[in-house]
Amino acid sequence: MAGSPRRAASRRLQLPLLCLLFQAVTIILFAIFIRYNHETDAARWHWGNHSYANNEFYFRYPSFQDVHAMVFVGFGFLMVFLQRYGFSSVGFTFLLAALALQWSTLVQGFLHSFHRGHILVGVESMINADFCAASVLISFGAILGKTGPAQLLLMTLLEVALFGINEFVLLNLLGVRDAGGSMTIHTFGAYFGLFLSRVLYRRQLEKSKHRQGSIYHSDLFAMIGTIFLWIFWPSFNSAPTALGDTQHRTALNTYYSLTASTLSTFALSALISGDGRLDMVHVQNAALAGGVVVGTSGEMMLTPFGALAAGFLAGTVSTLGYKFLTPVLESKLKIQDTCGIHNLHGMPGVLGALLGVLVAGLATHDAYGDGLESVFPLIAKGQRTAKSQAIYQLFGLLVTLVLAIVGGSLGGLLLRLPCLDAPPDSQCYEDQIYWEVPGEDENEAQGPLTVEEPDTRA
Amino acid sequence: MAGSPRRAASRRLQLPLLCLLFQAVTIILFAIFIRYNHETDAARWHWGNHSYANNEFYFRYPSFQDVHAMVFVGFGFLMVFLQRYGFSSVGFTFLLAALALQWSTLVQGFLHSFHRGHILVGVESMINADFCAASVLISFGAILGKTGPAQLLLMTLLEVALFGINEFVLLNLLGVRDAGGSMTIHTFGAYFGLFLSRVLYRRQLEKSKHRQGSIYHSDLFAMIGTIFLWIFWPSFNSAPTALGDTQHRTALNTYYSLTASTLSTFALSALISGDGRLDMVHVQNAALAGGVVVGTSGEMMLTPFGALAAGFLAGTVSTLGYKFLTPVLESKLKIQDTCGIHNLHGMPGVLGALLGVLVAGLATHDAYGDGLESVFPLIAKGQRTAKSQAIYQLFGLLVTLVLAIVGGSLGGLLLRLPCLDAPPDSQCYEDQIYWEVPGEDENEAQGPLTVEEPDTRA
Amino acid sequence: MAGSPRRAASRRLQLPLLCLLFQAVTIILFAIFIRYNHETDAARWHWGNHSYANNEFYFRYPSFQDVHAMVFVGFGFLMVFLQRYGFSSVGFTFLLAALALQWSTLVQGFLHSFHRGHILVGVESMINADFCAASVLISFGAILGKTGPAQLLLMTLLEVALFGINEFVLLNLLGVRDAGGSMTIHTFGAYFGLFLSRVLYRRQLEKSKHRQGSIYHSDLFAMIGTIFLWIFWPSFNSAPTALGDTQHRTALNTYYSLTASTLSTFALSALISGDGRLDMVHVQNAALAGGVVVGTSGEMMLTPFGALAAGFLAGTVSTLGYKFLTPVLESKLKIQDTCGIHNLHGMPGVLGALLGVLVAGLATHDAYGDGLESVFPLIAKGQRTAKSQAIYQLFGLLVTLVLAIVGGSLGGLLLRLPCLDAPPDSQCYEDQIYWEVPGEDENEAQGPLTVEEPDTRA
Repeated sequence: MAGSPRRAASRRLQLPLLCLLFQAVTIILFAIFIRYNHETDAARWHWGNHSYANNEFYFRYPSFQDVHAMVFVGFGFLMVFLQRYGFSSVGFTFLLAALALQWSTLVQGFLHSFHRGHILVGVESMINADFCAASVLISFGAILGKTGPAQLLLMTLLEVALFGINEFVLLNLLGVRDAGGSMTIHTFGAYFGLFLSRVLYRRQLEKSKHRQGSIYHSDLFAMIGTIFLWIFWPSFNSAPTALGDTQHRTALNTYYSLTASTLSTFALSALISGDGRLDMVHVQNAALAGGVVVGTSGEMMLTPFGALAAGFLAGTVSTLGYKFLTPVLESKLKIQDTCGIHNLHGMPGVLGALLGVLVAGLATHDAYGDGLESVFPLIAKGQRTAKSQAIYQLFGLLVTLVLAIVGGSLGGLLLRLPCLDAPPDSQCYEDQIYWEVPGEDENEAQGPLTVEEPDTRA
Repeated sequence: MAGSPRRAASRRLQLPLLCLLFQAVTIILFAIFIRYNHETDAARWHWGNHSYANNEFYFRYPSFQDVHAMVFVGFGFLMVFLQRYGFSSVGFTFLLAALALQWSTLVQGFLHSFHRGHILVGVESMINADFCAASVLISFGAILGKTGPAQLLLMTLLEVALFGINEFVLLNLLGVRDAGGSMTIHTFGAYFGLFLSRVLYRRQLEKSKHRQGSIYHSDLFAMIGTIFLWIFWPSFNSAPTALGDTQHRTALNTYYSLTASTLSTFALSALISGDGRLDMVHVQNAALAGGVVVGTSGEMMLTPFGALAAGFLAGTVSTLGYKFLTPVLESKLKIQDTCGIHNLHGMPGVLGALLGVLVAGLATHDAYGDGLESVFPLIAKGQRTAKSQAIYQLFGLLVTLVLAIVGGSLGGLLLRLPCLDAPPDSQCYEDQIYWEVPGEDENEAQGPLTVEEPDTRA
Repeated sequence: MAGSPRRAASRRLQLPLLCLLFQAVTIILFAIFIRYNHETDAARWHWGNHSYANNEFYFRYPSFQDVHAMVFVGFGFLMVFLQRYGFSSVGFTFLLAALALQWSTLVQGFLHSFHRGHILVGVESMINADFCAASVLISFGAILGKTGPAQLLLMTLLEVALFGINEFVLLNLLGVRDAGGSMTIHTFGAYFGLFLSRVLYRRQLEKSKHRQGSIYHSDLFAMIGTIFLWIFWPSFNSAPTALGDTQHRTALNTYYSLTASTLSTFALSALISGDGRLDMVHVQNAALAGGVVVGTSGEMMLTPFGALAAGFLAGTVSTLGYKFLTPVLESKLKIQDTCGIHNLHGMPGVLGALLGVLVAGLATHDAYGDGLESVFPLIAKGQRTAKSQAIYQLFGLLVTLVLAIVGGSLGGLLLRLPCLDAPPDSQCYEDQIYWEVPGEDENEAQGPLTVEEPDTRA
């Protein structure tokens, strides 16, 4: 149907062989390296008498489940907005995230918790792996509909490795604070994806333009994703923070920031449309920018006022980005950004990093008291001033951008390998190439959708 | 498209200006008044050694997340049943709830936790704000499809203020117990919305009747809302109760009550239909009445038997209400209740309040032991007898009804201001006025849905 | 419409009368037998000073909510894949689960926690009742679309009773370990349903074949179910395990196993299709087999490597089952398995039980340390060797299979009672018989879908 028989045969084998090869390698690496950590190992954990409370697991696991729901339901359904790409959006999200969870357990483990030849895993490694998967899914949003599953698998392998390295450099080498990942997750994922999309630029993409929009009920499915991202974001940002007031404060700041980005998104969406009508694309995406923008500063003494102001700004910038910047990115910079991740993750991520620079620079012993230890341990120990911490935060943003841009560009070159099966320009945003697709209504449910329709409508 | 160019221009500005104005005011008020509470503030919280357990946050936050999911996913999707109003249902739910969270943080804060010039916030204020948002969304259900977003914003501002006052009078002044909000959330939200709808009565609403029904897949979307409300209701009712046995018992009572309302709803739905077929409207709504009816008494020693009996009764009354009462409300009392909130929240809320009167009146030191302090502190301290507590509970219901009826009527007058942009009678239940709407299937996805169709079909 | 007027009248009464009768009986039994347990009863629970942490409720309740979400959202929407049976899929799931929760509280209570004439309930009985409901919903998957609601109610009553007995024999009499229910939930539910379906074999089912497939958006609804099952399975398997390292380890093992079953499902699905395209049926179902296969061994020292290998195997077997075994089951063994539960629950359940035999047989004091007490109390006390525990595990599987097969066959005979209203062969997989169904698009939303279409297309 799409391409010659030889290409079809090659396509038949690429995805399954890559999956099987990867899984075989991972199983072997898990057997050699991965071990239960002290809280998960029957022989090494000892309850005191009635001391359930001393097990950190119980204070992390509910957050983990929220993050898990957010990554799979949230990202999975947010991308279902395309009218004929729902199977791929939710299906490949599922596949890439599962792959990323395994692979980042290894990568992050080698970098962060390698100890006497073993990587020790527990609820914290589960949270960290989910965070890495989120970053991969952000990048996926830029190239959604324009890449085949074998390409996506390779992208995931590369991105997970670079994500781990970037995170290690920032958190461990530079002592940067970034609990909710404004830099490590959002900025990194966004610019990695955007530069990858740049290298994969398709001049003839308008051949698939008639499939690039949503239809009424695909927008409702996408709202499932939006709502899940929105409600669980407080848990996402607070999941890896220090227990106690820090986790509590992070959740609260994120909660307020999201309410403000929602209000500014509705305001701006109506304001910039020609006729005052709201645009579902803005509501589905920009309303979430408040979660991104406090990813770095959410654990700090941002104040509720600061959270509102930050969320308001993020929603505004994000909505304006959809209206004015996305078309320019495509026409001038040749960056085709299917989901507009630059607006939801790129710009709000950079803003969030800069907000982190500001709030870190304003940190005082007075404002944090004993809690300074949890948020800025290096300042608490006297190894840094607040100002030098701010400079490190800024440097962390630069490192992230460089790694994302270089990595994304390399990734693009990798994905252009001719042996990899990219969909033709006229078949983008189309499930039919990769999935057995039933009809949309009962009368056609038996026969397949027709694929090769004339492109004259575009 | 709908109305003159001047009205269109005014409509273009009302929503964004109200949002921006409100947000600017809230940001300023937050800067002046809102501060982290002692559990959220880095400088004021001190962990003991391994004492994660002493932080109430960890015993409240999972409930908060459940409530948050219930309010946004539950109410948001429950209202998507209308065939051409899905964007507005889920979108305006999102907007109104975000607005209510900010505004009720301020209102409830001034009334409940104003201390030395500041309002202190933490996980409990997040839960309380979500509760207030639930009440607003209940009222929204009565006028769904018949009001514009600017009207809805004003309704939210008014209702949040009155909700806070009513709650303060009941809980703080009258010493009424109402953890899950049979009175404060459901009765108040329902009668506020119903009287508001009464004042906004539309004689010509049948012009939009062809859009007032559901279609097959919009009913499935609505079931997402129903299921989320159903599963998280135990957390909703127990979220603000005393820690320990009270929270545990409330969750258990709610769980049983909901199973019983589900069974009675299926039974009654089949029984009262002409041909034994079930009605999705009943299943989507009446099955939830068991959660409403134990809102007051769920924390009390209701007994599992009492929970089943209450749920059974609530499901029965609610289903019968959809069949027999809703048409009468519209034809005789001119109350047009789009979602049938009188059946899901109004009658079960009043029943729940009365059940609270009964169970409070039966309270004994014997049945509650030391736990009496958590549920009925005034009885435990000897300041009230069980019977006087029951009378206060009944008085609380009356106060709630009066405030809701007066407030809703005033709200209706406010929303009738001619400058506010209400949809014309022929354009109710129609997304197209407020949203850019793609077509429903791929062939029309490029062009907009036609709006002005002849009303001859109605 | 379907059947004679007399049958229609009988159908009208069967469902409501059964519901009302059952509810009346349950309310009476609850009044006599069910009481709050010591953690839920106000008079019997005593907080120490700041000792929230000693209340097991707080360590179980988040898991309960996850299980609750998984059972209702997961199973409910997974079965919505049928194009014209969505109302019944999600609606009857709701009804049967609510019924099962009440009934299994009684059955499990009499067997497990009957004490001085009372059954004591709390969060653990809520989790156990949800587990039983999951088993009923698994069986429902085999006969989905081919049975009326009255039949389903009777099936539920029988299955809940047998589930309780089987669980009691395994856990209490045989000392078998099966926290996540590979045997008690999945194997039991699957073979009960399959043999029930065998007895209800319909030779003429191809008359409804045109309704047996999915359509595009019904597959997306089903993916909501899949994702919810996937994300919450770690909580499902760990909900009833010992607190501490055991619960932590179970969640971790399940998490890894599911990632591997997802990868092998995608690989195999593409590999076995003629043209390399993926099949949604596999992704919706087989990707979940990793949760089933570690149901028994998840709490044991399976190792992360073991979890990956088990998940990989389960996904492979399950996908191959959909392709090659399901058609044979129908054509040779006359087992019509609508959802393919044999592939998702039957084979992976048996594999999971066998894996439990293996891992139990390898248990050593060295590997478990003090934790042996939590996982294998009888080995820790010296009453059993690891090998004898393994033999008991195997025996538990045999008991489960025998009870499921005998029970399912009896259930089938019961459901064939001519007074029960089964849909005719030409009306299977059709909501219209049991529900008031609106049209699918706005133009037909007023009039009903036509039911009696010529069967010539099949």
